[in-house]
Amino acid sequence: MGHMEITITNPLDMHLHVRDGEMLQLVAPMSARNFAGAVIMPNLVQPVANLQAMHTYAERVREAANDSHFTLFMTLFFRNYSEKELRAAQNMPNFFGIKLYPAGVTTNSDEGVRSLRAVESTLRHMEELGIPLLVHGESQGFVLDREAEFLPVYRRLAEQFPKLIICMEHITTAAAIQLLNEHENLCATVTLHHLELTLDDVLGGMMKPHLFCKPVAKREDDREALLQAVLSGHPRVMFGSDSAPHPVHKKECCECAAGIFSAPVALCCLAKIFAEHGAIDKLQAFVSDNACRRYNLIPSKKKVILCDTPMQVPMEYCGYGQKITPLHAGEQVPWSIKNVEV
Amino acid sequence: MGHMEITITNPLDMHLHVRDGEMLQLVAPMSARNFAGAVIMPNLVQPVANLQAMHTYAERVREAANDSHFTLFMTLFFRNYSEKELRAAQNMPNFFGIKLYPAGVTTNSDEGVRSLRAVESTLRHMEELGIPLLVHGESQGFVLDREAEFLPVYRRLAEQFPKLIICMEHITTAAAIQLLNEHENLCATVTLHHLELTLDDVLGGMMKPHLFCKPVAKREDDREALLQAVLSGHPRVMFGSDSAPHPVHKKECCECAAGIFSAPVALCCLAKIFAEHGAIDKLQAFVSDNACRRYNLIPSKKKVILCDTPMQVPMEYCGYGQKITPLHAGEQVPWSIKNVEV
Repeated sequence: MGHMEITITNPLDMHLHVRDGEMLQLVAPMSARNFAGAVIMPNLVQPVANLQAMHTYAERVREAANDSHFTLFMTLFFRNYSEKELRAAQNMPNFFGIKLYPAGVTTNSDEGVRSLRAVESTLRHMEELGIPLLVHGESQGFVLDREAEFLPVYRRLAEQFPKLIICMEHITTAAAIQLLNEHENLCATVTLHHLELTLDDVLGGMMKPHLFCKPVAKREDDREALLQAVLSGHPRVMFGSDSAPHPVHKKECCECAAGIFSAPVALCCLAKIFAEHGAIDKLQAFVSDNACRRYNLIPSKKKVILCDTPMQVPMEYCGYGQKITPLHAGEQVPWSIKNVEV
Repeated sequence: MGHMEITITNPLDMHLHVRDGEMLQLVAPMSARNFAGAVIMPNLVQPVANLQAMHTYAERVREAANDSHFTLFMTLFFRNYSEKELRAAQNMPNFFGIKLYPAGVTTNSDEGVRSLRAVESTLRHMEELGIPLLVHGESQGFVLDREAEFLPVYRRLAEQFPKLIICMEHITTAAAIQLLNEHENLCATVTLHHLELTLDDVLGGMMKPHLFCKPVAKREDDREALLQAVLSGHPRVMFGSDSAPHPVHKKECCECAAGIFSAPVALCCLAKIFAEHGAIDKLQAFVSDNACRRYNLIPSKKKVILCDTPMQVPMEYCGYGQKITPLHAGEQVPWSIKNVEV
């Protein structure tokens, strides 16, 4: 029996991939069970880049999640949207923001943006309308330098559009934390796995495809900077799992897909990290309050009660013809979900 | 039909893993066919750490290679050998040198050396007897820093044992090339794959287990420094493939083994690289002369005639119940072996 408990009100996953089709059927309920809402990424094979596609995708996610207390915050794949389109998006009930991918940097991002200058008018409209810009911030350079090389772009965006809400998604470096501190209109999501892993875990011993993601995990200094920001309750740092499921056969093969599936273990692992560091009182801010304040969100009411009774993580999650290996497969996580109240 | 030909006399692979058992049966002939000799690494599951083990392993390799024109240069796994043991080793016909692994850095190196100070007397005897020391030079640090962090150890060895022949095996960094230039008693092997790959190839796009090796491929600057040394005919830089076969199921799985199987394509790929850079006249030095001079080697006489007719690399090499994916599986290499004369 556990001796510690913590109740999280309205936990939110501010960066989530739920895919589509059978994979969506399998993974959506795992997030819906533990979270009050999630920001749904638009990088399907055919990116979600118009309102109709966003609407029908939201319907499919809602149906798969099958939980009326799980709020969907839908995103559009960035392209040059007109002011009219942006206003129409704002009138849609689940619309949250627009996700910008530099072209070709991650799964299904071939359609991404190649030049920021060409998209300035859309950014200006977003700024005026208060539509958040979510950015996968990596250059096309050497894999470990990509985030650092992209930081000047964030800086330029922050300076040029001072009222635009710019979220640096899944940051992985100490340098990104530093930039975040320099601009009030920047905020950031941090994943669970970047709080846990360095590149040594990915290929310092054996090579671990299930720990391979984009951006790749960096150095211990970087991990510690992220951890420090998160544990200190940094008001502009929010939890985004970047949980990104791939079927096992796309991970254990000769060309392994990037993405770590952490959705079903995320909250429990976060509780472990925060408890270990004596910062369990900061978890509520990281997984909900910071995002609600930043984005004026009103998620469905949901209370998740976590306790320090261990959870045994399955080797794989199966269903709908899919098989996925989760983060910490086969391991025990010292915290588990005791109850969810709606 | 090709228009260019080059004849390599006595090509040598100065760093080769042929494993044991069925894998040995499959891979040994592929090296024997193309090379006049090879330095055989001792890191079997039970390391080759005594003369009897070395003798019987040499017999097994000879039998598997089945080529009387393929000279075996056998190595012992480093431990504290006595002067008597070292003298006895020198009297064995195939003995070449001693391979030092810092503990735990690569495949089957758990038995490696933990402190250099404790092995000074053995190094002193090796220096006096003229026995080469081959070193896997990596620290236990962050995966990309390991070689750089080990360089001070090389420097200390080079200064403390000025007549010891010290080979920096499979170097991967510009910093290692620089150190090499500072000490006449240092030499180095360079692999084919470190002339071709950077970390971007390994996980900059999809993650490629078949391109995963230790030391891991580094940055483009490092690759270029290796290439420059090799193509300029650096007299103390020798080809060592570090060809290290693993069965496919140990590469395409959740914990992938380190090692690239390049033996069957190595010479052809090297010819391509040297020809592309207008340095085909330097290939003989890299793949044979530098090593023969450095170590006073007299390999079996073998001439390998390469021509610029393309070679189709198979997707896998199979036999003896084994299946291995080679470097450049399924690709075409623009050079091939036209003939081998003995």
